[in-house]
Amino acid sequence: MNILIVYAHQEPQSFNGALKDLAVSLLRENGHAVQVSDLYAMKFKAVADQEDFRKLQNPEFFKLGAEQRHAQEHGLYARDIQQEHEKLRWADFVLFQFPLYWFSMPAILKGWVDRVMGVGFAYGGDMWFEKGGLKGKKAMLSLTTGGGPAILSERGRSGSIEVMLWPLQNGILRFCGFDVLPPFLAWGPAGATLETRQEYLEQFKERLLAIPTTEPLFFHPEEDYDSDHVLKPEVAAQTLIQQFNPVRKQS
Amino acid sequence: MNILIVYAHQEPQSFNGALKDLAVSLLRENGHAVQVSDLYAMKFKAVADQEDFRKLQNPEFFKLGAEQRHAQEHGLYARDIQQEHEKLRWADFVLFQFPLYWFSMPAILKGWVDRVMGVGFAYGGDMWFEKGGLKGKKAMLSLTTGGGPAILSERGRSGSIEVMLWPLQNGILRFCGFDVLPPFLAWGPAGATLETRQEYLEQFKERLLAIPTTEPLFFHPEEDYDSDHVLKPEVAAQTLIQQFNPVRKQS
Repeated sequence: MNILIVYAHQEPQSFNGALKDLAVSLLRENGHAVQVSDLYAMKFKAVADQEDFRKLQNPEFFKLGAEQRHAQEHGLYARDIQQEHEKLRWADFVLFQFPLYWFSMPAILKGWVDRVMGVGFAYGGDMWFEKGGLKGKKAMLSLTTGGGPAILSERGRSGSIEVMLWPLQNGILRFCGFDVLPPFLAWGPAGATLETRQEYLEQFKERLLAIPTTEPLFFHPEEDYDSDHVLKPEVAAQTLIQQFNPVRKQS
Repeated sequence: MNILIVYAHQEPQSFNGALKDLAVSLLRENGHAVQVSDLYAMKFKAVADQEDFRKLQNPEFFKLGAEQRHAQEHGLYARDIQQEHEKLRWADFVLFQFPLYWFSMPAILKGWVDRVMGVGFAYGGDMWFEKGGLKGKKAMLSLTTGGGPAILSERGRSGSIEVMLWPLQNGILRFCGFDVLPPFLAWGPAGATLETRQEYLEQFKERLLAIPTTEPLFFHPEEDYDSDHVLKPEVAAQTLIQQFNPVRKQS
């Protein structure tokens, strides 16, 4: 397989760096071609703005989505975005390696998504979810947390990890068409023993070797939704998040 | 009140720009002092890295949190971060005005959070949630979406808006100590009629005028949690997200 690793940590000696290095060497040993987008080392521009385009469709009124569509149609994207598009077209599998910052991606990785996953390339019109621009490709999140799993459980102070991952896995990856493999999580490696860190590396190794055979997460297909993009009444919600049924107080 | 508006849109003529302009003029008319951090206009640096610090505690091994704590203690933050800290210390109320990008903040605003809400300033040790660094201050999200509310309902293709807002409102704002007012949402203003946009401006005006008297959202206090930061068995979960109780399939 052709594998792209999108990696977001400032420090090569970090545990994120170790996970990325392990992925690169192990996947290559196993016959895969690997490219890495090392976002901090590339000084990747995180901010989506006018500079993303070599020429603007409307310099008087900047609309990101409209400019992305125009740039896609006319080959007007800035070079750094074009390069990421080329890597994504090449890749069969995309691994995102990052530390959790504020229950989401670090800004440099969020900016990669904002800028690279553009209208006309990753989504737009009826090109979304299983018809998204990256359909046929697989993706997986691999992330490190600051704390342990209890605080990210249903009754934990930060709420369920499922809630935290949904906007990333459904809202970004699946939205763009990827089949999404279950995430790899290393809980609090910064405060962990060497032994625990070694165990995480072993677990990660197993997950990497299993990439070709791992079953992707389930997301409801288009035919389960009505024209408002809500599950049809006869469809039983099969994702945990869509089973969420909060009881709101009467006001 | 002293009010800081953290504003993230590239285009002054956008609907986000209109909401920000309305907030500035209306709040000033009503006797409040207002400052705006216009992130794109400021070309605010979105990426948390070594350049955030005038001197590093450990140039051989970069750890963001450790450097933030060290910079806080020794006054070593870069000038742009210090300026945002000064605004936050001055503010009684912080309004975040932004368009939803990928079910979260645009990277420039996420980077503001990553860089400004540092260890030792916003959180760290037992300084979090109601003991967070910004305690006693209020905050509110005001955001625009691309689509309508149906797709962001419980059975919608993007899941409940509650799920999307939780990492921002609990995970960032409450985590840092803010009292969090209910969010203001303008659904799909880019595709809406002028009349609908006008209605959103009217609704926003009412929300702004009601800031001093609006009841903050409820979050469980520290005494409801055990030492693992999980709600004690005898405590009934009172936030919608912590009532989430997914039925996982047996594997």
